[in-house]
Amino acid sequence: MKSPAALDQLIDALRCLPGVGPKSATRMAYHLLQRDRKGANGLAVALDTALQVIGHCTLCNNFSEQPICSLCTSEQRDATTLCVVEMPTDLMMLEQTRSYKGMYFVLMGRLSPLDGIGPKEIHLDRLIKRAQDGVVNEVILATNYTSEGEATAHYVSELIKVRGLKVSRIARGLPMGGEIEYVDSGTLAQALLERKNIT
Amino acid sequence: MKSPAALDQLIDALRCLPGVGPKSATRMAYHLLQRDRKGANGLAVALDTALQVIGHCTLCNNFSEQPICSLCTSEQRDATTLCVVEMPTDLMMLEQTRSYKGMYFVLMGRLSPLDGIGPKEIHLDRLIKRAQDGVVNEVILATNYTSEGEATAHYVSELIKVRGLKVSRIARGLPMGGEIEYVDSGTLAQALLERKNIT
Repeated sequence: MKSPAALDQLIDALRCLPGVGPKSATRMAYHLLQRDRKGANGLAVALDTALQVIGHCTLCNNFSEQPICSLCTSEQRDATTLCVVEMPTDLMMLEQTRSYKGMYFVLMGRLSPLDGIGPKEIHLDRLIKRAQDGVVNEVILATNYTSEGEATAHYVSELIKVRGLKVSRIARGLPMGGEIEYVDSGTLAQALLERKNIT
Repeated sequence: MKSPAALDQLIDALRCLPGVGPKSATRMAYHLLQRDRKGANGLAVALDTALQVIGHCTLCNNFSEQPICSLCTSEQRDATTLCVVEMPTDLMMLEQTRSYKGMYFVLMGRLSPLDGIGPKEIHLDRLIKRAQDGVVNEVILATNYTSEGEATAHYVSELIKVRGLKVSRIARGLPMGGEIEYVDSGTLAQALLERKNIT
């Protein structure tokens, strides 16, 4: 007894999704074929469309349907600051704060030599070129405070500093509403170290 | 700042997969567009193909590319026993034991009134018709030993019994290599209750 070839191929194809192994792929395929053929068709169409129309903005490297995205063409933005983030979701989160009005550069990843992700894979050559457009005077590093994000920030800061531009890193400390009793000791130590004078 | 429409549509479409919420869908979409465009294309093609060619076997209700699947047309199988399972994976597991040579009926689900899955959704009318083909003389219920699987087995057994056919249920007891110390008490109680005479 073999299952239909097209079913096996679908299960195999679903495994290209991150975090999906053979068991989940099988469950997904059964679900789509049995209970949600309309959804499956919608997914196929959405994949096709996205592959055709979505590329990267030549300036900020974010996903975009145009060669230069709406944020990079906007005249309301402050072109003198460039904020470096790992992923488009990070950009979204920063935008939601409504407290940053400058430009962005999206690395689409983080340095991770073990996974084969080096400076080239996160487009550092393009970032350096972008930062040296003559208008940008400060690069803000907003990569995650994970070991990989930290390493990326350090590496990028070295590249930027030697080119005479100002580099900064987003602050680390207690989160809003954070209680000292419950915060981890690494964060607390850093919050102590980076204490600010009250004037 | 809005993300590209095609990207939003892809994220939305990915949410039709079971167990995929907004966060995972976003992660999947980024991964596909950034790191695995070939895989994404393969997935779109596989979905299209599967939707076109995969239907259900008219006899056993399993997924099949033909009106009647290869197992149901096989002459090596014993047509007098009919084994009822919940999902195609269960059928696969039983086939892997190589200890069953009869036919199958796949419910493609289990009774679950709260989820709106009643007798009609698991094709019990077709099962009854199938069991009354004049050749089948025993129906083996191999639904899961979960509360829903048990309820399904009970419901099906009542329907079959009144039609004068023999019904059986796969045994419950200690698993192979099972140690009494570590087995749950429900299983142990049932294993005691269903003890067999040693002859």
